[in-house]
Amino acid sequence: MSQTLDLAIELIRRPSVTPDDAGCMDLIAAKLEPFGFKTEWLNFDDTRNIWSRRGRSGPLLVFLGHTDVVPAGPLEDWLSPPFEPEIRDGQLYGRGAADMKSGIAAMTTALTRFVSRYPDHKGSIALLLTSDEEGAATNGVVKVVETLQERDEKIDWCLIGEPSSFATLGDVIRIGRRGSLSGVLRVFGVQGHVAYPDKAENPIHRFAPVLSELTHEVWDQGNEYFPPTSFQISNIQAGTGAENVIPGRLEVMFNFRFSTALTEDRIKQRVHAILDKHGLRYELNWRLSGAPFLTTKPELIDAVQRALEIVLKRRARMDTGGGTSDGRFIAPTGAQVVELGPINGSIHKVNEHVSIEDIDKLSAVYEQILVNLLAS
Amino acid sequence: MSQTLDLAIELIRRPSVTPDDAGCMDLIAAKLEPFGFKTEWLNFDDTRNIWSRRGRSGPLLVFLGHTDVVPAGPLEDWLSPPFEPEIRDGQLYGRGAADMKSGIAAMTTALTRFVSRYPDHKGSIALLLTSDEEGAATNGVVKVVETLQERDEKIDWCLIGEPSSFATLGDVIRIGRRGSLSGVLRVFGVQGHVAYPDKAENPIHRFAPVLSELTHEVWDQGNEYFPPTSFQISNIQAGTGAENVIPGRLEVMFNFRFSTALTEDRIKQRVHAILDKHGLRYELNWRLSGAPFLTTKPELIDAVQRALEIVLKRRARMDTGGGTSDGRFIAPTGAQVVELGPINGSIHKVNEHVSIEDIDKLSAVYEQILVNLLAS
Ligand SMILES: [Zn+2]
Ligand SMILES: [Zn+2]
Repeated sequence: MSQTLDLAIELIRRPSVTPDDAGCMDLIAAKLEPFGFKTEWLNFDDTRNIWSRRGRSGPLLVFLGHTDVVPAGPLEDWLSPPFEPEIRDGQLYGRGAADMKSGIAAMTTALTRFVSRYPDHKGSIALLLTSDEEGAATNGVVKVVETLQERDEKIDWCLIGEPSSFATLGDVIRIGRRGSLSGVLRVFGVQGHVAYPDKAENPIHRFAPVLSELTHEVWDQGNEYFPPTSFQISNIQAGTGAENVIPGRLEVMFNFRFSTALTEDRIKQRVHAILDKHGLRYELNWRLSGAPFLTTKPELIDAVQRALEIVLKRRARMDTGGGTSDGRFIAPTGAQVVELGPINGSIHKVNEHVSIEDIDKLSAVYEQILVNLLAS
Repeated sequence: MSQTLDLAIELIRRPSVTPDDAGCMDLIAAKLEPFGFKTEWLNFDDTRNIWSRRGRSGPLLVFLGHTDVVPAGPLEDWLSPPFEPEIRDGQLYGRGAADMKSGIAAMTTALTRFVSRYPDHKGSIALLLTSDEEGAATNGVVKVVETLQERDEKIDWCLIGEPSSFATLGDVIRIGRRGSLSGVLRVFGVQGHVAYPDKAENPIHRFAPVLSELTHEVWDQGNEYFPPTSFQISNIQAGTGAENVIPGRLEVMFNFRFSTALTEDRIKQRVHAILDKHGLRYELNWRLSGAPFLTTKPELIDAVQRALEIVLKRRARMDTGGGTSDGRFIAPTGAQVVELGPINGSIHKVNEHVSIEDIDKLSAVYEQILVNLLAS
């Protein structure tokens, strides 16, 4: 069994549901320290972060990952328990297999192999891990970046091991991300008995035409770098379970993933216009998780594309799809940010998995990126 | 103080929150027994029912009531404690004052006065009380009716003391009730991440056009006796609270109050047609609480209207509104069913109350109904 696969299995076995690290970082730190990496713990509240750096000079290439995973979901739908990694038909199954413990494993072994081959590499390398990417993301990379900026430690290139691939490993890399804007909407009605609807005002019924309009709206067409803006409702809730009571309020949580073709303010205006047009009584609280960002400078992108050509004989399509990532905290520092990781088809779902062949290939690509940028 | 008011106060003092009878029936049985009523206890599980009959021949007139009450709700909102009856400004306050302990008190004293005046009345009279009307209604009148049918004891006329009056005592009587049909709908989608809507299928979005259609549908126009059928969604739920997860399923609870212009089967067909038209993947469980019923034969209605004319100098509007009542279990036996009781504006609310003047008037009306139907 390959060292990378072995390490991925060890990581999945640790039930690091966000923001719990469950010991993953200790395992990685122990792997890197013999190779001259200096581990620094940057913990904030319930969140663990490590910053393992090798070298003092620039340029600085950072490998970035998160050890936390989303909850397993309904256990009865998993063919094997989510935190008992199992290989079936060439796939490694378990929560975090693709997002992103195999990526972390591949980065770790790539780092140790590279350093063994090039002990006197140029510049510096660091591995940054957080356990707060899937959750609130308030005590993770955002805080680490603040710390680094306070001491003038500047990242030049940041490679994130998030699962970027679509159909085959390395077919897609991410060079930016859409913005993420969330809203919590409360629609007010008047509670009553289902037998007397005239004396009540059903907020679910009042919301019906608004729901229809919001879900059919075309928000934009996207642009050269970004897909069209998407709107999704993640939660809807009204009623206490009593079947004969018309509820007094409805609560809806929604999210926009938006391109640089739109702005936060423009989205808010358009949503309020729809709500107001239908005369809803409501309260709406907005939260911006991240503005859209885009890497346009060529060095890191080129190093990644050449590594993919050398190891996998392909070049990746460059894309800005997917969720937000911790890249939103790194990009504003001026760093070039690229994301490359395994196939993302099963992430956040039951029976999450990754091809065991891809785990080794990915580690080889990461190693080649290190060679392209920092081989002496 | 009138005997009826006195008895109403004694009943309210007993905190008979459904399905608890709290001794109300013992009190009533003790009042009736000296007048030749034979009390039979028909208890099922946690529910008490009494069947107090006087006479052996037909026709049989039944006075029907429930001793249980709905919970008091927030105590701090009551001006006097809910189970400590208090008279203020000519109103008797307490939980059950209107629904329906004053009705039971009025029936009881009407029965004893009538029997004293007409010891050799025609046919038979019975008082049927249950303590399971406000709750599940599974061990109350439905079971008593089964027992009566098993031994071929047939009800000809059933007068229910539920609070039917709207603005003044006796302005409205109920001669039927709408049917109540509930559904629990599960809409299936595919769970995923809000950033990858193409890989998920959002059941909330899939449901949007269906919600719109269901809430705009005109189910019928009602008919001479019934208001139009109403459709209300009482609960809607999707999502686990996580704001970045597209939920895998949506659950909706809804209820129809339907007229005799529609049938259970026709409603089901139309709902399924709408769901199927939009290609939803779903599961739908139906529950019929009661089919609509309507009393069209004239004897009981006439006796009630003539009593209202004699005692209150008015005739009532005949209506089929409101929630379901235990009449749904009596009507299918072929009995004529009419509901007449106090003003219902405060029922199921805090500071429930009834006019003390109306309590005595109501008892007089009940007595006159007995006279109209059974005086010898
Ligand atoms: Zn991730
Ligand atoms: Zn009642």
